[in-house]
Amino acid sequence: MDKITLTDKYSLFDEIWTPKIITESNGQLVKIAKGSGELVWHSHENEDELFLVLKGQLTLKLHDGEIVLNPGELFVVPKGVEHCPMAKEDTHFMMIEPASTQHTGALETDVTVSADAQEWI
Amino acid sequence: MDKITLTDKYSLFDEIWTPKIITESNGQLVKIAKGSGELVWHSHENEDELFLVLKGQLTLKLHDGEIVLNPGELFVVPKGVEHCPMAKEDTHFMMIEPASTQHTGALETDVTVSADAQEWI
Repeated sequence: MDKITLTDKYSLFDEIWTPKIITESNGQLVKIAKGSGELVWHSHENEDELFLVLKGQLTLKLHDGEIVLNPGELFVVPKGVEHCPMAKEDTHFMMIEPASTQHTGALETDVTVSADAQEWI
Repeated sequence: MDKITLTDKYSLFDEIWTPKIITESNGQLVKIAKGSGELVWHSHENEDELFLVLKGQLTLKLHDGEIVLNPGELFVVPKGVEHCPMAKEDTHFMMIEPASTQHTGALETDVTVSADAQEWI
């Protein structure tokens, strides 16, 4: 029963596009990640995915436009909606999603971190 | 499909201890609130409750101690755990919890805002 300080957690890793799990609430995982450059287009068939930006700028490319998120801004990508995250250098963001959510949806790429391999910090 | 800017949402209300719903994700509601002073002791039998502080300081009094949250710090009050939120003046925080969550649990007080009456902004 300890509080979580986001800056402390961010000091524990350097990898980009590699979500780290920091806590769980009602069956959903709270994850933090660093981003820089572009990930890949993907979607999650059964899970909405909430993004909250803490530092930098995260752009969620969608087929009908772009959502540009600065610190203190959030967006929920609805289940089934294809998106491609793209970030300015040294961007920090939080995600909240069910434990079942695969990193890059049904797509498996060189950068994919499988849900089983996602690390608790 | 618009992004949500937290400062914009906070400019829309002044009430304290009155959660406003800003979005929904996987059946859970994302709420923001302002706090100042003390709410009441209560618990949620079936729902974990995530608190993330954005501004000010929120203290979650628990029977075995206090969790003091500053901006960028979060804590999940597990289901069934009695807590009493207490905040410095002009504290802003976010909560994520299932739609079923009652404001002050089974307790109904003068300050209770029933789940049905919680407003989307």
